[in-house]
Amino acid sequence: MARVVTLTTDIGWAYAAQVKGVLLRALGPGRVVDLAHDLPAHGIAEAAFLLRHLGATFPPGTVHLAIVDPGVGGTRAPVAIACRDGSSLVGPDNGLLDPLARHLGVRAVVRLDRSKVRGPGGASATFDGRDLFAPAAARLANGAALRSLGGPATLTPLPVVAPRAGRFGHLGRVQHIDAFGNIITDLPPSAAPPFGALAQVRFGRGRSVTLPVRRVYEEVAPGTPLLLVSSFGLLEIALRTGRAADRFRVRVGDRVLLRSVRPRNG
Amino acid sequence: MARVVTLTTDIGWAYAAQVKGVLLRALGPGRVVDLAHDLPAHGIAEAAFLLRHLGATFPPGTVHLAIVDPGVGGTRAPVAIACRDGSSLVGPDNGLLDPLARHLGVRAVVRLDRSKVRGPGGASATFDGRDLFAPAAARLANGAALRSLGGPATLTPLPVVAPRAGRFGHLGRVQHIDAFGNIITDLPPSAAPPFGALAQVRFGRGRSVTLPVRRVYEEVAPGTPLLLVSSFGLLEIALRTGRAADRFRVRVGDRVLLRSVRPRNG
Amino acid sequence: MARVVTLTTDIGWAYAAQVKGVLLRALGPGRVVDLAHDLPAHGIAEAAFLLRHLGATFPPGTVHLAIVDPGVGGTRAPVAIACRDGSSLVGPDNGLLDPLARHLGVRAVVRLDRSKVRGPGGASATFDGRDLFAPAAARLANGAALRSLGGPATLTPLPVVAPRAGRFGHLGRVQHIDAFGNIITDLPPSAAPPFGALAQVRFGRGRSVTLPVRRVYEEVAPGTPLLLVSSFGLLEIALRTGRAADRFRVRVGDRVLLRSVRPRNG
Repeated sequence: MARVVTLTTDIGWAYAAQVKGVLLRALGPGRVVDLAHDLPAHGIAEAAFLLRHLGATFPPGTVHLAIVDPGVGGTRAPVAIACRDGSSLVGPDNGLLDPLARHLGVRAVVRLDRSKVRGPGGASATFDGRDLFAPAAARLANGAALRSLGGPATLTPLPVVAPRAGRFGHLGRVQHIDAFGNIITDLPPSAAPPFGALAQVRFGRGRSVTLPVRRVYEEVAPGTPLLLVSSFGLLEIALRTGRAADRFRVRVGDRVLLRSVRPRNG
Repeated sequence: MARVVTLTTDIGWAYAAQVKGVLLRALGPGRVVDLAHDLPAHGIAEAAFLLRHLGATFPPGTVHLAIVDPGVGGTRAPVAIACRDGSSLVGPDNGLLDPLARHLGVRAVVRLDRSKVRGPGGASATFDGRDLFAPAAARLANGAALRSLGGPATLTPLPVVAPRAGRFGHLGRVQHIDAFGNIITDLPPSAAPPFGALAQVRFGRGRSVTLPVRRVYEEVAPGTPLLLVSSFGLLEIALRTGRAADRFRVRVGDRVLLRSVRPRNG
Repeated sequence: MARVVTLTTDIGWAYAAQVKGVLLRALGPGRVVDLAHDLPAHGIAEAAFLLRHLGATFPPGTVHLAIVDPGVGGTRAPVAIACRDGSSLVGPDNGLLDPLARHLGVRAVVRLDRSKVRGPGGASATFDGRDLFAPAAARLANGAALRSLGGPATLTPLPVVAPRAGRFGHLGRVQHIDAFGNIITDLPPSAAPPFGALAQVRFGRGRSVTLPVRRVYEEVAPGTPLLLVSSFGLLEIALRTGRAADRFRVRVGDRVLLRSVRPRNG
């Protein structure tokens, strides 16, 4: 089966079109898949979280090209990664690729060598996505060996603060605000009270909110907040038919403190 | 010709990417077509209207996967539909699929059986699009029989109020606000005065607006409203080089009362 | 290699889906590439600028279908263009296709003849993209001769004011605001002071801004403006990790006056 290249970026459709033109030259029709081009600008941590979860649904052998690259042309290295399942990742070494790479298992990493990887146009200082990452991804998708693209390198880890359980509850962080305004955290399902119980959630320094633990949205009335297990397998705070992130003024990176509400004795 | 799967959703590009990963595993490259992922959140009626018109342009044999599914995990059934022209529809049975299904002609409907249709990952409570609809659509696109996916079911109709002509004019409803802010109604062209005449339009309880009936936008001055036949074959209220829905504060579902303005005797 | 059709429009994903349905009927899977459907509504000049730069990255033989067509059904002609490199362009003759056509080299132009080019549905008055351009593009992608689509025509040039150097500096215009809010001008790199120097920029009648000339964003502090060479090969005014167009209240078409700041003698 011909290998496809997926594209996950914050650069918008117009710039992404240039990346696709370069890929089409090398790959021919039908082998590029747009994942997202509307990721929050410069939001490396949120993009890394999404890429990890999106990438995991694709078949072994896929080449994932990701561009959230505010440091383009600076000190961050351009890299390509061969994963244990035969997938490849291409992009800036700024933490963006790290969670998916670790999920798929890293076999080898190279720093892309600009003298070995060239696109059909000239090279700009500010668009490695088009001029370096796209030609590298195309070559990998066409079967080139990773080592033909550059010399060995080490992957920079994404700085991550793991959620932890303490005296006052479970402390995590907002990883992603989805298209519905649902708030996706890094807290595991085990941090939640059982289905049907009540939980108390506090975002950053905001007020505490008490909300029921449910399995699906339809189990509460419209406009009501709830705590549930998101399709990412992590805890989510949502508002039925509304935008929880707007209601609670929450942003990616905010802290989330979660605790059970004990039923009072009569 | 290999059958393609189209995707029409309100879930945004990031969630849609997970659906595409699952489809790619089963279908290989080049067989998934993104129609829209930016439909208004939870807007079943508007999405059903669009899906009916988008789907009608695709060739027989296409598999249409649609996800506008606020009741995921609740009482609404997950279904697949075989149509008379060989097309298939997959999604929630909440009215979303009904107009396109009736347009193409329903041959058979099944309720998807979670024990027979499984994706490569586990099943979540809140993302049937990825975990149930995508594997079902992929199997249909690969030639599986509808009955292999579940038992017979009956399709739930979308609640529709048909436009009607009365003493005060033609009464319809806003079906869709397009990317230009044009207001697409359910009123047929026959409800409009002849080209060149004037019409009076009233949205909900708002003020009446008098506007000319024209064939195309260029026939009025910039900033001027007009009534014309949209490319959906239904009446549309537009503003040349402006957003009619913003100017008239109109939303999907609003009532539209249309009548002719009689030329006064001199 | 099968020829692909690219789509560059301001019509949004839902209308574009109808165009893709028509193309799929004629082309089969995998031969349509979405470039952008979120271009500013009716923004012919900005779309023409983008199409020129996007189109240039695609391989010879590509068919570019572009729809920014506020004058649909009016006096502007529907055209198809054969280019010297074997590429084709299809769309309205309102200036949109002109810069890419001239970049690729015009071999022949025809005015599309509605009696010779028909889609699978009927023809509307307001959606040539679906009813005329898509069937024309599909036929070209399938190898039809340009002259089978209509009679010879002449291309309408896009009105362009070339940047010029004067006594007070270099005068250009804003061509595009990108997804990051970066301001892309038509000024050539030669109009800028050398790297490391300071430049003074004035947008329209606004205040003058002094900003450093740099190679990449990372060379200034977050929130700081800079002048650099964009990936379009033209001068760009950006704000590191911010939106320059919002900060300086700049729109496409605004004038830009650029001059060097002379270092003062001590």
